[in-house]
Amino acid sequence: MMQHNFSAGPCILPKSVFNKASKAVMDLDNSGLSILEISHRSKAFVEIMEKARTLALAHLNLNPNEYTALFLQGGASYQFLMTAYNLLESKAAYLDTGTWSAKAIKEAKLLGEVDVVASSKDKNYNYIPKSFTVPSDANYLHITSNNTIFGTQIKDFPQVDAPVVCDMSSDIFSRAIDFSYFDLIYAGAQKNMGPAGATLVVVKNDILGKVSRAIPSMLDYQTMISKDSMFNTPPVFSVYVSMLTLEWLKQEGGVSAIEKKNKEKADLIYTEIDRNPLFEGFAVKEDRSAMNATFTLKDEALKSKFDEMAKQANLNGINGHRSVGGYRASMYNALPLESVQVLVDVMKELERTA
Amino acid sequence: MMQHNFSAGPCILPKSVFNKASKAVMDLDNSGLSILEISHRSKAFVEIMEKARTLALAHLNLNPNEYTALFLQGGASYQFLMTAYNLLESKAAYLDTGTWSAKAIKEAKLLGEVDVVASSKDKNYNYIPKSFTVPSDANYLHITSNNTIFGTQIKDFPQVDAPVVCDMSSDIFSRAIDFSYFDLIYAGAQKNMGPAGATLVVVKNDILGKVSRAIPSMLDYQTMISKDSMFNTPPVFSVYVSMLTLEWLKQEGGVSAIEKKNKEKADLIYTEIDRNPLFEGFAVKEDRSAMNATFTLKDEALKSKFDEMAKQANLNGINGHRSVGGYRASMYNALPLESVQVLVDVMKELERTA
Repeated sequence: MMQHNFSAGPCILPKSVFNKASKAVMDLDNSGLSILEISHRSKAFVEIMEKARTLALAHLNLNPNEYTALFLQGGASYQFLMTAYNLLESKAAYLDTGTWSAKAIKEAKLLGEVDVVASSKDKNYNYIPKSFTVPSDANYLHITSNNTIFGTQIKDFPQVDAPVVCDMSSDIFSRAIDFSYFDLIYAGAQKNMGPAGATLVVVKNDILGKVSRAIPSMLDYQTMISKDSMFNTPPVFSVYVSMLTLEWLKQEGGVSAIEKKNKEKADLIYTEIDRNPLFEGFAVKEDRSAMNATFTLKDEALKSKFDEMAKQANLNGINGHRSVGGYRASMYNALPLESVQVLVDVMKELERTA
Repeated sequence: MMQHNFSAGPCILPKSVFNKASKAVMDLDNSGLSILEISHRSKAFVEIMEKARTLALAHLNLNPNEYTALFLQGGASYQFLMTAYNLLESKAAYLDTGTWSAKAIKEAKLLGEVDVVASSKDKNYNYIPKSFTVPSDANYLHITSNNTIFGTQIKDFPQVDAPVVCDMSSDIFSRAIDFSYFDLIYAGAQKNMGPAGATLVVVKNDILGKVSRAIPSMLDYQTMISKDSMFNTPPVFSVYVSMLTLEWLKQEGGVSAIEKKNKEKADLIYTEIDRNPLFEGFAVKEDRSAMNATFTLKDEALKSKFDEMAKQANLNGINGHRSVGGYRASMYNALPLESVQVLVDVMKELERTA
């Protein structure tokens, strides 16, 4: 049975990546050893790590002389703290566009003044605030490019003087934008890049070294950079599978090519949400995410019928987050258009039979 | 070709675990989904996490009402910081038995006074200091039970009044001791428990909540406990493989049974090190580790011959750490006695043909 995996993350990855990863667990490249038992200092793994770091920068079209890619642990939640530790000297500006932004704000407050320049909390985060002013003395502006829970996505990034730090966990490698706009990007692997357990950080080298506090080794980007992302034992398997996924993305034609496919998927689901009288979208149209489509049933009484139909069609992971309710279709890079078509067909079938 | 994997970590795991993990990457328990693509909030993974936590405490024979097991990220290096953040109010005592102890001391110093009660650095850490006094006002004593690099291991734990925090990364689950002696145990998974990317923390609940500082969420044990080890996305695959390895350990008869096997392996290699006139052990005899045997060639001129013979015999990962030189045979739980026998045979063969 083919499963259609709409999970918000961890989420679907390419089938070819599963195949290679499964083989490597038994025997990595005919070495006679499993990827799980090799030393992280082995030639084989050092090459994997370097390939992953190189591919990440290449996909983002960033200059390796200006930016460094790191594969760390701890996810975005750890980066909420680490970014502030390394960059927040006196004051930082944060744009509050959802649960994850709010968590980032909470951790940053432990280390300095936080100016929340705008928030869409007033409407349960169903839009992206557009007009706000970043204080001229802010050490950086922190934004969340895509809000997984609410299904909103920043389309036009604000023009600001401050360095921009971006939590790109749920839409990195999904669309072609000018990544050199950002001074620091971080992303948990478990959406478009790989399995849970690895976190990509892409940092512009010249923004570091400007805070006066003593930074613990495990929170210090400069320590991680100086050790080529191997200050301590890295999450070997998660980095390996991330590397495989970044290779797959290259074979698919890179970020520009995948953006077209992502747009097709998003157009298909949003067209149906808007057409079908039984459903309505949660996020305002102009801020709709191409990664996570959030929508609700107008008549809750149809819920059990729709859920049963979805189950019969092998649709997985479409329940909405508890803070929004309804449904959420996450359509990351590896999700085939076919899966979205199956979901749309079920929505149409509900309309026909309700 | 059968490889003999003596790597210091990441290291050998049971073949049956590789088999199950490889299958789960394609299809977890006939769900039609890969372990890499399921939500960490799915019923399947919540059960895996709970099983891993329960097995960990059961193997250590610890009461689940007194202790909590957590699967975190970041390895021992992260715990150097996290333990101090949660427990160091004014002063802490540290026993310096090697590189990892020294790193733990470095991070703790950022948060309070550190009293290094004893150190074996004077002899390049080839022994465990035995007599020292822990200040009565120390918040805790920090020790490293096994020193991977130097091949020493604490056999008799000091009787102290202070709570004991132990870095047990390289010998947890390898021997039957009274684990209730410890108030906090941490261990990177990548030796006896699983692949890199997960870190086990076992904490006695009543030692927490006693420091006055504000603790960032990702560094707060109480936050991790309150969320059942799922404050944020856990390293799903590493936890899964750890669970499989802990299940395997149970099938093998648990910690007491594996201790016997580990003793057999250690006896075999150390007997040869002491017998063979070409070699000598690095660590003093009474403090020798059952996990990592460190030894050197008396005549460096034989090195290339021995290395070539080892290569021909498919012996992997026996190079010593640069701070000791020579050789290191790491003999974690999953290493078969047969592998140690092959190494010993090569050592004998060198003696015969040198």
